[in-house]
Amino acid sequence: MAVHAVIMAGGRGERLWPLSTPDNPKQLHSFGTAGSLLRSTFERTREIADSSRVYVVTNEQIAARVLEHLPEIPGENVLAEPVGRNTAPCIAYAALTIARKDPDAVMAVFPADHWISDKQGFTAAIGFGIEALREHPRLLITLGMVPDHPETGYGYIAPGEVAARGASHRLHRVLTFREKPDLKTAETYIEKGFLWNAGMFLWRVDTILDAFRVHLPGMHALLSAMNERPEIRDEDVREFYDRVEAVSIDYGVMEKAPDVGVIPAEFGWNDIGSWDALGRIMPGDAHGNTVSGDTLLEDASGNVVWATRKKVVLLGLNDLVVVEGKDAILVCPRTRSQDVSRLARLASGDREKT
Amino acid sequence: MAVHAVIMAGGRGERLWPLSTPDNPKQLHSFGTAGSLLRSTFERTREIADSSRVYVVTNEQIAARVLEHLPEIPGENVLAEPVGRNTAPCIAYAALTIARKDPDAVMAVFPADHWISDKQGFTAAIGFGIEALREHPRLLITLGMVPDHPETGYGYIAPGEVAARGASHRLHRVLTFREKPDLKTAETYIEKGFLWNAGMFLWRVDTILDAFRVHLPGMHALLSAMNERPEIRDEDVREFYDRVEAVSIDYGVMEKAPDVGVIPAEFGWNDIGSWDALGRIMPGDAHGNTVSGDTLLEDASGNVVWATRKKVVLLGLNDLVVVEGKDAILVCPRTRSQDVSRLARLASGDREKT
Repeated sequence: MAVHAVIMAGGRGERLWPLSTPDNPKQLHSFGTAGSLLRSTFERTREIADSSRVYVVTNEQIAARVLEHLPEIPGENVLAEPVGRNTAPCIAYAALTIARKDPDAVMAVFPADHWISDKQGFTAAIGFGIEALREHPRLLITLGMVPDHPETGYGYIAPGEVAARGASHRLHRVLTFREKPDLKTAETYIEKGFLWNAGMFLWRVDTILDAFRVHLPGMHALLSAMNERPEIRDEDVREFYDRVEAVSIDYGVMEKAPDVGVIPAEFGWNDIGSWDALGRIMPGDAHGNTVSGDTLLEDASGNVVWATRKKVVLLGLNDLVVVEGKDAILVCPRTRSQDVSRLARLASGDREKT
Repeated sequence: MAVHAVIMAGGRGERLWPLSTPDNPKQLHSFGTAGSLLRSTFERTREIADSSRVYVVTNEQIAARVLEHLPEIPGENVLAEPVGRNTAPCIAYAALTIARKDPDAVMAVFPADHWISDKQGFTAAIGFGIEALREHPRLLITLGMVPDHPETGYGYIAPGEVAARGASHRLHRVLTFREKPDLKTAETYIEKGFLWNAGMFLWRVDTILDAFRVHLPGMHALLSAMNERPEIRDEDVREFYDRVEAVSIDYGVMEKAPDVGVIPAEFGWNDIGSWDALGRIMPGDAHGNTVSGDTLLEDASGNVVWATRKKVVLLGLNDLVVVEGKDAILVCPRTRSQDVSRLARLASGDREKT
């Protein structure tokens, strides 16, 4: 029952534009960490899986750069999606790839672009989940982050009865998943002990494939057709992605499957969903400015300032985001951070996706 | 009595940093005009002087670029100062160069980096001054801008009795020059009919050389030594600049000379002394934003936004200066524009000149 880790690295990271761009997205950047977010994610998977069993699903545009960041993994473990189709096809493609090598595998799925400050805490939670799968092999397990504030930017998970207990962790049955709430609703969720849905999963590969068969039969049929090939070629992958429906693993499977578990965990997690969020998690200077690169701040506090090639000079301004990307410079109040992905599409003239 | 025009183009333009830098200063940039400020200044001189009699005093760093902007003028008319020594040595060097060719010359001096919207009005005022010199050959004439607000960033000139009248201009004797005032003082200056000192001059070349002899005898002695050479070589110029004292023409001559005249003039003049000033003189968009280059503004008003290579995106902010220079990006409130030259020196580590 070897563990195979899948890193989902196909995101465009629009919320951290203009630093993050389609050809150099968020997961390839470092945010005060030693390596890129992708590299940090990989370093965490090494605690639970041999690097020969670490897979990265990404897009064709950055596949080569993924291998530059992770030279330890076999080139064939970089699974390039010809087109993004949300998380269910991404996970299905990875699951099939793993199952063909190791039908008995345990599969762990992690986004490439999240921030986790407590690596040991992460390893302990995942380790507990892997153990729990021995007793509950039919469970689809998700990690639920214990909230510290009523965040409106995350989905929530309602934990139910306890299915397994470890020294410092518990596995609950999931009662229900909830979409991103408004602030009042988020506050009630916190009171009720709901958890943040962080998009990290643990399951046996045969279990998730079976769940696809039941809950996403169309996708499963395409997957089975691909599986009939003695070897999965690029054109088979292309055909799968051409025809498969775009759907998230949450909506397509987790919210429908009867046997879903959640492990509440606290390991300093954040999805860095905005420049404002980054300013909150990265240490600031004496005036609460989070800065990177060559900057000069005077009479300025609470700003998030990111310089890449040029020196960014800020005078007499507070609580702003100032980011120099490769092709664009963004200036806005931190409170408007949530508008950034829309601006990113607007600025690149990609209006149809707005 | 041919007219020779001298354009002073040695400025570093620190107040419009980071667009303006020592190797690409303000006078080489365009601000909504067809060509650079230098080019516009040259176009104005063509109304009064043949291009063979237009001289540019500048620094060695940008001398070649000056000729690129003004291919019509002879290369020998670009006078490169080995080091900046304020305006008196600059004007002295140009005056000597002109006097050796044409001792009877009328000399007109203009800064290269000013904004003038009414070219006809400018030509008329200068034309009147040239005529007035026939009657008053010993006068040092300066142009005085009729103020439209109590500006604290300019020096003032108090006009006295009228010495000559034209169809639409008058020449006054100057009573006194005043340094940049505080706001209250500026208001009294406006009430008294004082004029802005714009640093534009008209005189016979023999008159200004004589004024140097009387008021700046040390400089005049160095000039005379240089004049003894059959040909002025680079090393002669270097020796002059090595030894000459740095002093402004205002302080060194105009404020001391007994025969000084001023012509009040109105031709939409501005020295573009700050980003804020630029925002006031350049036409803005419907929300009062003055923009240049590739910009995207949303929910933003009253800003001055200058993009050069990257797209500058501004969201939800008002009355800011955002400027992308070659090596630096500046973000500050328009009300802090006067701090920019200090920041420019700070940012380039040139602290001793602060």
